[in-house]
Amino acid sequence: MCKSYLLEELADHIGAKIKGDSRIRICGVSSLEDAQADQLSFANDERYLPLISRCKAAALIVPPSLEYLDFPLLISAHPYVAMARAAQLFSESPYLPSEVHCTAFVGEGSQLGVEVGIGPLAHLGPNCRIGEGTRVYGGAYLGAGVEVGNHCLIYPGATVLDRCKIGDRVIIHSGTVIGSDGFGFAQDEKGQHIKIPQVGIVQIDDDVEIGANCTIDRAAFGRTWIQRGTKIDNLVQIAHNVIIGEHSAIIAQVGISGSTRVGKHVVLAGQVGVVGHIEIGDGARVGAQSGVGRSVKAGEDVSGSPAIPHKEWRKMTVNLKRLPQLREELRQLKMKVQELEKAIHEE
Amino acid sequence: MCKSYLLEELADHIGAKIKGDSRIRICGVSSLEDAQADQLSFANDERYLPLISRCKAAALIVPPSLEYLDFPLLISAHPYVAMARAAQLFSESPYLPSEVHCTAFVGEGSQLGVEVGIGPLAHLGPNCRIGEGTRVYGGAYLGAGVEVGNHCLIYPGATVLDRCKIGDRVIIHSGTVIGSDGFGFAQDEKGQHIKIPQVGIVQIDDDVEIGANCTIDRAAFGRTWIQRGTKIDNLVQIAHNVIIGEHSAIIAQVGISGSTRVGKHVVLAGQVGVVGHIEIGDGARVGAQSGVGRSVKAGEDVSGSPAIPHKEWRKMTVNLKRLPQLREELRQLKMKVQELEKAIHEE
Amino acid sequence: MCKSYLLEELADHIGAKIKGDSRIRICGVSSLEDAQADQLSFANDERYLPLISRCKAAALIVPPSLEYLDFPLLISAHPYVAMARAAQLFSESPYLPSEVHCTAFVGEGSQLGVEVGIGPLAHLGPNCRIGEGTRVYGGAYLGAGVEVGNHCLIYPGATVLDRCKIGDRVIIHSGTVIGSDGFGFAQDEKGQHIKIPQVGIVQIDDDVEIGANCTIDRAAFGRTWIQRGTKIDNLVQIAHNVIIGEHSAIIAQVGISGSTRVGKHVVLAGQVGVVGHIEIGDGARVGAQSGVGRSVKAGEDVSGSPAIPHKEWRKMTVNLKRLPQLREELRQLKMKVQELEKAIHEE
Repeated sequence: MCKSYLLEELADHIGAKIKGDSRIRICGVSSLEDAQADQLSFANDERYLPLISRCKAAALIVPPSLEYLDFPLLISAHPYVAMARAAQLFSESPYLPSEVHCTAFVGEGSQLGVEVGIGPLAHLGPNCRIGEGTRVYGGAYLGAGVEVGNHCLIYPGATVLDRCKIGDRVIIHSGTVIGSDGFGFAQDEKGQHIKIPQVGIVQIDDDVEIGANCTIDRAAFGRTWIQRGTKIDNLVQIAHNVIIGEHSAIIAQVGISGSTRVGKHVVLAGQVGVVGHIEIGDGARVGAQSGVGRSVKAGEDVSGSPAIPHKEWRKMTVNLKRLPQLREELRQLKMKVQELEKAIHEE
Repeated sequence: MCKSYLLEELADHIGAKIKGDSRIRICGVSSLEDAQADQLSFANDERYLPLISRCKAAALIVPPSLEYLDFPLLISAHPYVAMARAAQLFSESPYLPSEVHCTAFVGEGSQLGVEVGIGPLAHLGPNCRIGEGTRVYGGAYLGAGVEVGNHCLIYPGATVLDRCKIGDRVIIHSGTVIGSDGFGFAQDEKGQHIKIPQVGIVQIDDDVEIGANCTIDRAAFGRTWIQRGTKIDNLVQIAHNVIIGEHSAIIAQVGISGSTRVGKHVVLAGQVGVVGHIEIGDGARVGAQSGVGRSVKAGEDVSGSPAIPHKEWRKMTVNLKRLPQLREELRQLKMKVQELEKAIHEE
Repeated sequence: MCKSYLLEELADHIGAKIKGDSRIRICGVSSLEDAQADQLSFANDERYLPLISRCKAAALIVPPSLEYLDFPLLISAHPYVAMARAAQLFSESPYLPSEVHCTAFVGEGSQLGVEVGIGPLAHLGPNCRIGEGTRVYGGAYLGAGVEVGNHCLIYPGATVLDRCKIGDRVIIHSGTVIGSDGFGFAQDEKGQHIKIPQVGIVQIDDDVEIGANCTIDRAAFGRTWIQRGTKIDNLVQIAHNVIIGEHSAIIAQVGISGSTRVGKHVVLAGQVGVVGHIEIGDGARVGAQSGVGRSVKAGEDVSGSPAIPHKEWRKMTVNLKRLPQLREELRQLKMKVQELEKAIHEE
């Protein structure tokens, strides 16, 4: 039942050079500690030598600097990327919905491509379009008129609400809600909240992955938009009309307020909060738990709440710890100055 | 298929004055940028003039100060509220459960009002009472003995557990859990946690809206209580026995610990944390990411972690940035004082 | 329909001494304020005397120091633990799935122990093993090859994905996702994220309770592991390969990054963030909203972001508030020193 590849097939797939027996049969990828005798493992540099010496793997992916190792090797300039690509070959879930299950609900007018699987007790509203090879796991919910591209995975308990658009090869993990109403209210003269209907959509482009229990609100008007290749961790909140550029990484529990634009190749670390209506430039990086209250320039690194340039923040945190000492020094200096004053006046 | 209203009908509905052709037919509301030739748009003040000049809308909602515009106009003292009310007329979802679907589970003894819709694969436990016009979307789960008032929307994947009580016109978005157990444990002599059964309920009053993937725990005893008109954003945690007053706004990712009382017209900004057993007075406002460790007086604005009065916090954050400079000044002053000491002693 | 016990039966069960009529019949446990005439209540010390004087309960659990009260009493050295144990006797949900409902999906090869209940519209993948007395509520989802021990509760809308292992007496609340993919990507030369398949599992040991809408990611390789007796509140994020020791308490909205090890009897307060690849020692406590960037020693208390020893943090926050005053003092001192300099030079 185990999928397997020859070492030379893997070398070919990941673009690596072989050292040693190219006909070894490999059944999986694992860490140096856990790898079995028929598995492939990987190491990035010499710090892993102690683990390598105890490793049972059949072969290793290593950088050229470790070419001397006494192991069958796949040598790659980017061992981590090579490992990811090799692991992908072995990783297909053994439990994929492979047909439209008889207990699933599929609304009228929905069109399913070839090799679409809809699991038990899943729900597709009317007029959905699902591209070829896409799998909607049991218990997932798609509303009316949802469009999903090819080869997507919609995990159990994920919800994609009416009219949202999902690209190709998108992965949406369990419990995530795409297309809930944005938090939009007008206050009347008595301070009561009047709901502003949220009539826009969410658009998610190709190769995006969204973690578990995230919330991505539909736009008030227009669209909330996650662009190609961006990866979002768990429990992230993305408010209405936010736009996130390509290949960004949004770590767990981040919250982004309405209408903010995040550039491409941006990293927002865990638990960051971003206010609405600002811009975070391409390649910017925001440190964990930061509170971003103003626009961030392309390439800038910021940290802290409120966020400031990362280098300043580091200095500040060091100085913060020294605050009690600072106060003490000031106190002593005051006394010295008093003594000096006394000395002078006594003259 | 498009719902439409005459401009004069809308004027009537939102209480606005008309300028221009009152017989224009309007098919929807959108932003200045996105509005189509048969839609209504809105502007609050002169900052929007550049957008207005390019706007294709059939008519605009504006304040009296923009009455001079060369557009068919609905003139209102509160354009934002007027826009919300107009948009509501057009906003009914095209995909509402309109009957009790044959794949839904409805437990024994449950009573449904007129025009109740229960979507495919939804679950109602035994002895629920659902008021007229309420829609429980497919995939939502109501436990045993749940009471829901009239004209509510319970979205797909929302969960309301046993015996919780929901008022009229309440909206509960996808993935939200109402009535999970509060986090209540007693520690025995070995430091092990003994569960304290959580036997209370959650009560949610009329006109409350709760975002996606929130958690509102049932009371240990008695009730956790969200009062009329309060609006809660996504991923908010409300612990057992918390009470939130009327017309408050709780922004995304806020956490409120057990038995805390939040007043009416309070605003808790994003990612705020509030400790247990305190009181946040009516009309208080708490800045984003603040950590509230003590009671806050009515009308007070606080920020920071730990939270302090907002004005003090602003001063503090300014001073924080100057800390390195402060240290440098102190260092120079110390040197000067040393020189002075030397000068005096040499005399 | 009310379950009831004699006071002497309760005394026996919780190991308490009786004062007063041991044949009183008790129908439940409640707070001092809410207790009915046939219920038991509890008080920890004399601060509760005003509430006790108005309490309608049939009997009270109290510590020896309150033995003088004019009430039927259960006297226990640990009234809070005794109360928890008594309340557990009364607390069984009236609405438990008691059979395999005909609308549930149960995959081929799944084995169910005696007295297992699978609610309406629940999903069990193929080859699951469910231990005796375990209840999987309606709308819950278990993937393929999931193992669940005896007497567990899996609440509506909870998701446990393929191959994860759950011990005995584990409680998983609604909306929680166990076994979603860890956030693991390798960056290629263009800064694009290449997915590293997450092929490990999540293992949850006996007597763990996990709140609502949490996310616990499966390991990249190996396992993410929550050990015996640990209690996790709502909306908590636990990344791949994290290990949490026995009897720890993780409060709401905490996030723990990949491969971090948390010891036993640790407390992480609300909204804490912990970076990856560090260790938090046994018995350590981390204050609310802290950001833990380095390992924490056993028994240490830390607070702040970045976290420092709790005592230092308290001093620091006090000093922070005095920063404006500090600056003012420094300014005045500078002026004095200038005067002194002038005075000396004029001599």
